[in-house]
Amino acid sequence: MNFSVKTELAYRVAKATPFVFNVQAQQMSGQTIVSERLRIDPELPTETWTMPESGNRYVRLIAPSGGFKLTYHANVRLDHPTEDPARVNEIPPGSLPLSVLTHVYPSRYCQSDRLERFTQRTFGALPPGYQRVAEICNWIHDNVDYISGSSDAQTSAYDTVSQRAGVCRDFAHLGITLCRVLGIPARYVSAYAWRLEPPDFHAVFEAFLHGPAGPGWYMFDPTRMAAPEGIVRIGVGRDAAEVAFCTQFGEMEAEKPEVAISGPADAPPSTTQAVRTQDA
Amino acid sequence: MNFSVKTELAYRVAKATPFVFNVQAQQMSGQTIVSERLRIDPELPTETWTMPESGNRYVRLIAPSGGFKLTYHANVRLDHPTEDPARVNEIPPGSLPLSVLTHVYPSRYCQSDRLERFTQRTFGALPPGYQRVAEICNWIHDNVDYISGSSDAQTSAYDTVSQRAGVCRDFAHLGITLCRVLGIPARYVSAYAWRLEPPDFHAVFEAFLHGPAGPGWYMFDPTRMAAPEGIVRIGVGRDAAEVAFCTQFGEMEAEKPEVAISGPADAPPSTTQAVRTQDA
Amino acid sequence: MNFSVKTELAYRVAKATPFVFNVQAQQMSGQTIVSERLRIDPELPTETWTMPESGNRYVRLIAPSGGFKLTYHANVRLDHPTEDPARVNEIPPGSLPLSVLTHVYPSRYCQSDRLERFTQRTFGALPPGYQRVAEICNWIHDNVDYISGSSDAQTSAYDTVSQRAGVCRDFAHLGITLCRVLGIPARYVSAYAWRLEPPDFHAVFEAFLHGPAGPGWYMFDPTRMAAPEGIVRIGVGRDAAEVAFCTQFGEMEAEKPEVAISGPADAPPSTTQAVRTQDA
Amino acid sequence: MNFSVKTELAYRVAKATPFVFNVQAQQMSGQTIVSERLRIDPELPTETWTMPESGNRYVRLIAPSGGFKLTYHANVRLDHPTEDPARVNEIPPGSLPLSVLTHVYPSRYCQSDRLERFTQRTFGALPPGYQRVAEICNWIHDNVDYISGSSDAQTSAYDTVSQRAGVCRDFAHLGITLCRVLGIPARYVSAYAWRLEPPDFHAVFEAFLHGPAGPGWYMFDPTRMAAPEGIVRIGVGRDAAEVAFCTQFGEMEAEKPEVAISGPADAPPSTTQAVRTQDA
Repeated sequence: MNFSVKTELAYRVAKATPFVFNVQAQQMSGQTIVSERLRIDPELPTETWTMPESGNRYVRLIAPSGGFKLTYHANVRLDHPTEDPARVNEIPPGSLPLSVLTHVYPSRYCQSDRLERFTQRTFGALPPGYQRVAEICNWIHDNVDYISGSSDAQTSAYDTVSQRAGVCRDFAHLGITLCRVLGIPARYVSAYAWRLEPPDFHAVFEAFLHGPAGPGWYMFDPTRMAAPEGIVRIGVGRDAAEVAFCTQFGEMEAEKPEVAISGPADAPPSTTQAVRTQDA
Repeated sequence: MNFSVKTELAYRVAKATPFVFNVQAQQMSGQTIVSERLRIDPELPTETWTMPESGNRYVRLIAPSGGFKLTYHANVRLDHPTEDPARVNEIPPGSLPLSVLTHVYPSRYCQSDRLERFTQRTFGALPPGYQRVAEICNWIHDNVDYISGSSDAQTSAYDTVSQRAGVCRDFAHLGITLCRVLGIPARYVSAYAWRLEPPDFHAVFEAFLHGPAGPGWYMFDPTRMAAPEGIVRIGVGRDAAEVAFCTQFGEMEAEKPEVAISGPADAPPSTTQAVRTQDA
Repeated sequence: MNFSVKTELAYRVAKATPFVFNVQAQQMSGQTIVSERLRIDPELPTETWTMPESGNRYVRLIAPSGGFKLTYHANVRLDHPTEDPARVNEIPPGSLPLSVLTHVYPSRYCQSDRLERFTQRTFGALPPGYQRVAEICNWIHDNVDYISGSSDAQTSAYDTVSQRAGVCRDFAHLGITLCRVLGIPARYVSAYAWRLEPPDFHAVFEAFLHGPAGPGWYMFDPTRMAAPEGIVRIGVGRDAAEVAFCTQFGEMEAEKPEVAISGPADAPPSTTQAVRTQDA
Repeated sequence: MNFSVKTELAYRVAKATPFVFNVQAQQMSGQTIVSERLRIDPELPTETWTMPESGNRYVRLIAPSGGFKLTYHANVRLDHPTEDPARVNEIPPGSLPLSVLTHVYPSRYCQSDRLERFTQRTFGALPPGYQRVAEICNWIHDNVDYISGSSDAQTSAYDTVSQRAGVCRDFAHLGITLCRVLGIPARYVSAYAWRLEPPDFHAVFEAFLHGPAGPGWYMFDPTRMAAPEGIVRIGVGRDAAEVAFCTQFGEMEAEKPEVAISGPADAPPSTTQAVRTQDA
């Protein structure tokens, strides 16, 4: 399926200030950039870099005093394989590729070391597999209220599990944390998300499981607010600390980001299959 | 200088349990493995992997029910360049290699997002450079008590800055956190540390600065307990969450690790120069 | 029923150190001190005080350098009324005596302000009354593991609700917190507890409800480890911060407290009725 | 000196909702209510209560669906004794009245148990007395930024000591906490505060010390924003959890409170003497 994504970001600074953006869609198998355009207005020199271990694409610029606007527009084709969830299993820690072990460790917003007992009590006895991660998402969906403004930049999974309110970022953090306690590698994904209302940057997570085609990352969205087959991946990382769409070094004023994504008009309802993403 | 390092780790498990170790010295420019031997007793199949972005070396084994012992012995030559601290500067965020930006973000034990104001108030006005990081280390040394048992696996820099007690791990976390607030990339290093008394695994940190030979990582030890030129690097990561010397997946009993390092008998006193480490 | 309670506390100090003890049974309607003896060995001058708003009895002494032992022995008759739980109701906040409002506010270990949503989601829809508080106790009993050493002096209800392990103190704190969110005044009680195995100081909590005889405090023990009709009340307070059995001002070494309580040999099984305590 | 204080509070509720207010000036030696008037508009039945151990005055009403306004106006004469700070000393814990011990314990927002080492390191070596508490206030004033909106209802002294920003409430909490670690009883005071700009409810704290006239409570304002001799005390408590000016049980909308206080036009500059308050 083809998607058109767009974002427009506007900032004002009082003196020259470095900005790093991570808003471009990743280039990876299953996610093809048909065309894209990144424009800075007024025009500014930029520097770009793609992180080898994540595929995240970064753009840096030094904004001079005054205002500037970044516009990104891309046509992206997604053809991630979908699989029967019943055939997707967990991988015992003794068999996990050592390269994904990093995603079992606790991180800033996903303190899996503090939620051992809760997780084991609630999910430890469920049969391992895709369905267990889906049950984690169900639990989050059923027990945490999605409320804009109920959390802030310091809110972590340890808070969300008690406070029971948050936004997509918090939902993803909690899902990641619960997976990690169970020994399932999990990571944070920032994305353009089709059918998300109102349109905005979205956050979901991926768990590392073993499907018919071998081990790989599978996408989960505990908010149930977007279509799994319409997630255009921007950044992946241990948690939100690593995939901000904008990092600036100094004071600034920002306008509310504008984000849009459109897909095929005649598309069927969202898939209930397991969606497998593939690293570049 | 040549160092002989050794560690002996012993565990008992009740049923087959996967273990991942990160105890081998890194192989990198300035740190040469002259010889090494890793032995598991009783003999067990192992799998090894070196993480490309860190150089960390991992060994995995599945311990069967009963006990086992891992012994690692290495002869390591260290010849990290040392430089005049006065010639080592900070790098403005607009000029940092994008590949090290990851080490400016907050992590599990280094919540730099929560210590902004404290850091800016205490260190923000100091002239940028190696000396500012040294002042951070001095502050930690002077304001935090080194007390075995005063912290635990959940203690983070946010606690240490208030509770004012910890061990090498906590000292390193606090140093990393304060650097990150100032925009200085910083990372955690686990090591064999010469002249550390009593001998044990040690933790220090590295900050990314710009010296006479260009940008690179410089080693700092806020505990002042070891010789900077005698730090045999084992693992680097965002913080201790990523460089445990042992990660196991299941219940186990561990004996206290034995760690030893010896250096040249006739070595001069520890250096006061800046020690620069070099990625592989 | 008559109970014999005893405790023996031994300390060593290097220099003169003030101690305040709160180990004596309260004197109140329903809890009669038939006889009691408090001995300090070696003999030391003491000062005593009973707090009007709580009935807590305090003894202060200045321990000289060296060791001392406090022994307390009392014969106590308990005849708290027991009532049919079905006839004990909650009191709407508009009708609560203003004097108990204090026990609806958050306190050090009972941060009811942070567990609103969790509490409302889990218990908000249950019919108000004694039974709702009993359901809170059931939830704690079923979802939190009683594990000695799993918590420390800084552990609060906010931790226990996520970490799911604790001791009697943590169970009481969590019960208090959940009640307060629902607008039910609740307070911490330290006690000698009959049938508690092994014998030790115990912690339970009281909720302010309305029974057949009017408004009053009702006792709850989410650990289910002691007999409700055999709780000899020592101290009440907002939480454990206010009812330590020993507060000292300086360094000391303590031996493990010895605590004993014995009741009638031929007593029937523990009551399942609501036990109502009565302030002095 | 005579002061005229006034507050106007307006609320809207969708259904009958209990409110408890604590906005009336305390009646105590040194603070005389010359005249006062509390009006609810539209008129509603109210219930009042003065807490014996604090002197706090509470008014409860059940607001029917719709809006209401509370207006409080009082003329208050303050003639608290002022004393030479050099003659005001700390009281060793062995000599403190047992009735104030409660104010040495940690509370919701003043976790003195977690700031031992920081406090001892920073203030432990200073000579005991009024001046040491003044140094605590100086430290807070010099190291914490007063910034509206930088803290919220969950912010505690443990946060403020690291985050270094807050409002009067946070300044008071930190002062209380540091005093308690040193064994100095301290409590939270809500007040109308003369010369505070802009006018608002204010928070200060009191420490229990020993002056020329014996032991008593002395007022401290680490914000330095108001005149110590012009603090009209409303409520005292362990911390802000106990002295909200409004506690409601249900949803409501509030207008921003209006607060005003005026004093003698020709008054001299604010006192630098120790201001001693006296319980009723």
